[in-house]
Amino acid sequence: RYGEAETEDQVGLTTGLAWTEVGGEILTIEAVTTRGKGRVLTTGKLGDVMQESIQAARSFVHSRAVTYGVKPTAFEKIDIHVHVPEGATPKDGPSAGIAMVTSIVSVLTGIAVRRDIAMTGEVTLRGRVLPIGGLKEKLLAALRAGIKTVLIPAENEKDLAEIPDNVKRGLEIIPVSHVDEVLRKALTRPLVPIEWTEEDEEKSNAIKPIAGDDAEVASGVTVTH
Amino acid sequence: RYGEAETEDQVGLTTGLAWTEVGGEILTIEAVTTRGKGRVLTTGKLGDVMQESIQAARSFVHSRAVTYGVKPTAFEKIDIHVHVPEGATPKDGPSAGIAMVTSIVSVLTGIAVRRDIAMTGEVTLRGRVLPIGGLKEKLLAALRAGIKTVLIPAENEKDLAEIPDNVKRGLEIIPVSHVDEVLRKALTRPLVPIEWTEEDEEKSNAIKPIAGDDAEVASGVTVTH
Amino acid sequence: RYGEAETEDQVGLTTGLAWTEVGGEILTIEAVTTRGKGRVLTTGKLGDVMQESIQAARSFVHSRAVTYGVKPTAFEKIDIHVHVPEGATPKDGPSAGIAMVTSIVSVLTGIAVRRDIAMTGEVTLRGRVLPIGGLKEKLLAALRAGIKTVLIPAENEKDLAEIPDNVKRGLEIIPVSHVDEVLRKALTRPLVPIEWTEEDEEKSNAIKPIAGDDAEVASGVTVTH
Amino acid sequence: RYGEAETEDQVGLTTGLAWTEVGGEILTIEAVTTRGKGRVLTTGKLGDVMQESIQAARSFVHSRAVTYGVKPTAFEKIDIHVHVPEGATPKDGPSAGIAMVTSIVSVLTGIAVRRDIAMTGEVTLRGRVLPIGGLKEKLLAALRAGIKTVLIPAENEKDLAEIPDNVKRGLEIIPVSHVDEVLRKALTRPLVPIEWTEEDEEKSNAIKPIAGDDAEVASGVTVTH
Amino acid sequence: RYGEAETEDQVGLTTGLAWTEVGGEILTIEAVTTRGKGRVLTTGKLGDVMQESIQAARSFVHSRAVTYGVKPTAFEKIDIHVHVPEGATPKDGPSAGIAMVTSIVSVLTGIAVRRDIAMTGEVTLRGRVLPIGGLKEKLLAALRAGIKTVLIPAENEKDLAEIPDNVKRGLEIIPVSHVDEVLRKALTRPLVPIEWTEEDEEKSNAIKPIAGDDAEVASGVTVTH
Amino acid sequence: RYGEAETEDQVGLTTGLAWTEVGGEILTIEAVTTRGKGRVLTTGKLGDVMQESIQAARSFVHSRAVTYGVKPTAFEKIDIHVHVPEGATPKDGPSAGIAMVTSIVSVLTGIAVRRDIAMTGEVTLRGRVLPIGGLKEKLLAALRAGIKTVLIPAENEKDLAEIPDNVKRGLEIIPVSHVDEVLRKALTRPLVPIEWTEEDEEKSNAIKPIAGDDAEVASGVTVTH
Ligand SMILES: [Ca+2]
Ligand SMILES: [Ca+2]
Ligand SMILES: [Ca+2]
Ligand SMILES: [Ca+2]
Ligand SMILES: [Ca+2]
Ligand SMILES: [Ca+2]
Ligand SMILES: [Ca+2]
Ligand SMILES: [Ca+2]
Ligand SMILES: [Ca+2]
Ligand SMILES: [Ca+2]
Ligand SMILES: [Ca+2]
Ligand SMILES: [Ca+2]
Repeated sequence: RYGEAETEDQVGLTTGLAWTEVGGEILTIEAVTTRGKGRVLTTGKLGDVMQESIQAARSFVHSRAVTYGVKPTAFEKIDIHVHVPEGATPKDGPSAGIAMVTSIVSVLTGIAVRRDIAMTGEVTLRGRVLPIGGLKEKLLAALRAGIKTVLIPAENEKDLAEIPDNVKRGLEIIPVSHVDEVLRKALTRPLVPIEWTEEDEEKSNAIKPIAGDDAEVASGVTVTH
Repeated sequence: RYGEAETEDQVGLTTGLAWTEVGGEILTIEAVTTRGKGRVLTTGKLGDVMQESIQAARSFVHSRAVTYGVKPTAFEKIDIHVHVPEGATPKDGPSAGIAMVTSIVSVLTGIAVRRDIAMTGEVTLRGRVLPIGGLKEKLLAALRAGIKTVLIPAENEKDLAEIPDNVKRGLEIIPVSHVDEVLRKALTRPLVPIEWTEEDEEKSNAIKPIAGDDAEVASGVTVTH
Repeated sequence: RYGEAETEDQVGLTTGLAWTEVGGEILTIEAVTTRGKGRVLTTGKLGDVMQESIQAARSFVHSRAVTYGVKPTAFEKIDIHVHVPEGATPKDGPSAGIAMVTSIVSVLTGIAVRRDIAMTGEVTLRGRVLPIGGLKEKLLAALRAGIKTVLIPAENEKDLAEIPDNVKRGLEIIPVSHVDEVLRKALTRPLVPIEWTEEDEEKSNAIKPIAGDDAEVASGVTVTH
Repeated sequence: RYGEAETEDQVGLTTGLAWTEVGGEILTIEAVTTRGKGRVLTTGKLGDVMQESIQAARSFVHSRAVTYGVKPTAFEKIDIHVHVPEGATPKDGPSAGIAMVTSIVSVLTGIAVRRDIAMTGEVTLRGRVLPIGGLKEKLLAALRAGIKTVLIPAENEKDLAEIPDNVKRGLEIIPVSHVDEVLRKALTRPLVPIEWTEEDEEKSNAIKPIAGDDAEVASGVTVTH
Repeated sequence: RYGEAETEDQVGLTTGLAWTEVGGEILTIEAVTTRGKGRVLTTGKLGDVMQESIQAARSFVHSRAVTYGVKPTAFEKIDIHVHVPEGATPKDGPSAGIAMVTSIVSVLTGIAVRRDIAMTGEVTLRGRVLPIGGLKEKLLAALRAGIKTVLIPAENEKDLAEIPDNVKRGLEIIPVSHVDEVLRKALTRPLVPIEWTEEDEEKSNAIKPIAGDDAEVASGVTVTH
Repeated sequence: RYGEAETEDQVGLTTGLAWTEVGGEILTIEAVTTRGKGRVLTTGKLGDVMQESIQAARSFVHSRAVTYGVKPTAFEKIDIHVHVPEGATPKDGPSAGIAMVTSIVSVLTGIAVRRDIAMTGEVTLRGRVLPIGGLKEKLLAALRAGIKTVLIPAENEKDLAEIPDNVKRGLEIIPVSHVDEVLRKALTRPLVPIEWTEEDEEKSNAIKPIAGDDAEVASGVTVTH
């Protein structure tokens, strides 16, 4: 049934956790890529803050591309579509940030996301994980849905005192401070950095229509990421 | 008369089912393609959620293009226009998702849609069929319109208990979990996957103005679809 | 005087019929093309539904281009401007759809529209003519304006029973089911299909900047129209 | 002083007539062109209807370019900016249409507009002049401002009966039915059509980036204007 | 302190005068250019009318480029950013028009603006200076801020009768009718026209991607400015 | 914990200071660059004024690029994303201007920002630092967060009289008049200007698609920055 843990690990599909006035809920974050030109499409009746968190997740991944094993040029040739079913239910807030990053990295690398893991946490442009609200409701929802492991922001660890013991026994709850920890736990295979030399940068610029032979600057810029 | 089953199988035309406060109704989903540049046009006084469901349907089909027998490059050369008559009646909701996918696949492959079939179901970016509301009203509308077969979400099967017997006798009701089942039932011919090698990807990138010879990345991205 | 039948057949100018709370009225649908890049401009204080009906009319004609004697590539080199005087009067609704199609086909082919004919009917993306409201008021307006022939949707034929006899005597009223019948009646010369082979498609793609040599797909797409 | 007739004939500057609740007023329509890419800029706190009337004026002139002595390709290389001082006063309505056409033709041909002439009239996409409101107030304003000649829509001729005799004695009032009459009266030199052959069209398409060698279609389209 | 006359003449920085319900105030108009593609950026919480006056100022300068010593092609290679500090204070109205022109001409030519001069006046697309409101409050503000010279619209000269004598003694008040007088007074060096022949126009078109060898038209257009 | 001083100097991350009705707060300004085409992305529920201050910061840095050691062409090849966590909290106002400039210069040069410094101040397009409100609340927040040094606008120096002595003892408070002072204090290494000759400008224009060989103008423009 929809709203329960998936039956197999999938590429681009991450389980987030939502908190509404009627309780916690599983939130499925789906990403696909298509041939395109660098756009991000978002659907699922997403509010402004959640849409911004997707943009931030994309920029974070883009700026880290080499570390995550993705060529920086990949983003110019594809569109990324992030969808959150169910399409008629409004969703908002920044707390799906780390799930957005996970779905985007998964779909760009082809490495599946563990189906028995759920996560909640805002993410900054540098990958830091910020605290969220509604921890109890979210953990209850994860338990109900058959999730085994939940990643939570390290700054929410103090809130675990208020969580019922049966919830804590039923779930492996892992505090995380940086999205790199999230990716290590959630992806089914480790990420393998690629090499991306100044020569690669120069060559890829040379074939961009607005670029040219001015590779030194482009390199300088790239190293600041 | 409009609002009844079509008199012949047509390419790009799928019968959906709508549920309004005045009862159920037939919803015609029309798609045409024209030479273009990858745009999706939507008309028919469609609400935001229905427009998003068309975008999601398009991305789903795009990401599955090879499997469905469509070259991934096809999307860059055409516009897809999805229209839902009657133009003065507001329409909304995600439940025409599988009908949107069917019309888009039909128009891209040139394979007609069976005229005596109707369908209802939200679709995810991975093709999963999610449950909908108003099943009874929709089935009644299908019967009235002379439809023979209705595809419904598997998760709505439990609601069939409340459906009057004469409706169940008058219609073949088929529960579906994935849009691939929808396409097998609704299209008049089976879909034939094409081959799309890394060489094809490289060649097609080489002729894109913003691309270049960086085919390895493009391939890596493509396989994650 | 404006609001009466034109004094000569003109290219791109079709007479529609509007129905407002103060009665029926003649609606002039004007189209011109200019060198451009595929845009549709609409002016005349048109509501959302009427603007959508122009988009749908354009996509319909584009998808039928070859049949109507227009090269599919023509749309990429021109802009189409559709204007409905008088500019200060708000207009809306889908019932000018067949008049929109007629003006667009006329302006693209250079074949004039008969000045003594008026028409009303919504059009689908496949050219089917859907019923409209206010038939009596519209017919009265046509008569007043000196129109000789009115095309109405076949599904409105049943409403003719309520139309006063003098109106029916004064006008030739022709029910139509498909826009092809509209074009046969309203244009001053028959449309002559052109030939458009896969080779033409390939050649025209080869000169598009985003295209390339991938003509097989483009052809496949084209035949689904 | 601003609000009086200009002291010399100027290129791109036409005197319109406005009608507000506090009476009639002179309306200066200014147009300039700059190197650009086919855009129309409008400023002066113009309402939607007046902005649409500028778009319609531009399309009309574009579709008539050859007749008016302007190469059809000129529009692709320039932007046209239409401004109506005074910038803080809201303006709206379609009745400056013929003045818009006059300013645009003037600026594209370099032929000045007579400074002692004012005009009022809506214009259609085919150049027909439609009637306007507030004729008396507008004529009074023209007289006050030192205007010698006023062009009015032929369909407003019947309203002259209500105009005070001193106004009619003080102004030459010329009814016009088509914008061609307007241009003959208002421009200081006659327009000289250019020749524009199919070969010109083909050559100009050949150098457009999205065009190519498909000149037959382009020609076919052009003749429908 | 901010809100007082600058301590040195600067390129792109002009002192305007604002009039609000709490009195008059100095308004700093800042312009910078960057490599770009012809855009105008405006910031500083500017209302619609002030933004339109920046657009009009830009088009005026663009159409006069040669006279002011700027190549017409310069505008295609740069963006112009006009900012009015303080960013949290809403500003509106057309009366900074001549200050906008001055900042734009200054930044395009590299000629500084005199720091001890302030100005107020709406500007038309032909450079005419139109009258403004709040003259007294604006002159008081200029005096307070240490300004020596104020340029005012010639049509506001009649309002000087109501200005206190000490204000008139403390400021050199110069009425202006055309923006050319403004530029002569406000810039620290005279503007030097450049030559721009038909050959220059042709050559610059030849290197525009949408242009080509159709130089005769482009020239014809240019002379109408 | 988030909301305290960072534990190491980082590239692109600057600490600003916010003032809300519930007191002062640390504001983290994050910037990253990615391969792109000159866009600025902003996220973090930023109000219009804060978004404008980011645009102004970018234009300021762009116009000063050579002085700050960044090639002017760098901006055409990258996108800059500025994000202000926490994503659900609305933020507005111009007083983070100098922090925006600092983050952008840092990310473009790869020089880290000192982690123990915070700053507040509006910035003009010429780098002047304008006064802000809420100085006391902001300084208290800086102290609480473990900040050592705070840069404040020189025009706010007079407000220091009202600041409690323990706050002034706990913080090094440095008044600044120009953003160049800010960059000298806040960056961990000095900025090194690059050389950018007319030949560089010409060469970089030659490879821009809309440019060409018209290098003299481009140079002229550049020197006005
Ligand atoms: Ca590098
Ligand atoms: Ca480098
Ligand atoms: Ca591949
Ligand atoms: Ca590969
Ligand atoms: Ca074909
Ligand atoms: Ca084929
Ligand atoms: Ca022709
Ligand atoms: Ca021809
Ligand atoms: Ca010339
Ligand atoms: Ca010439
Ligand atoms: Ca230079
Ligand atoms: Ca130079």
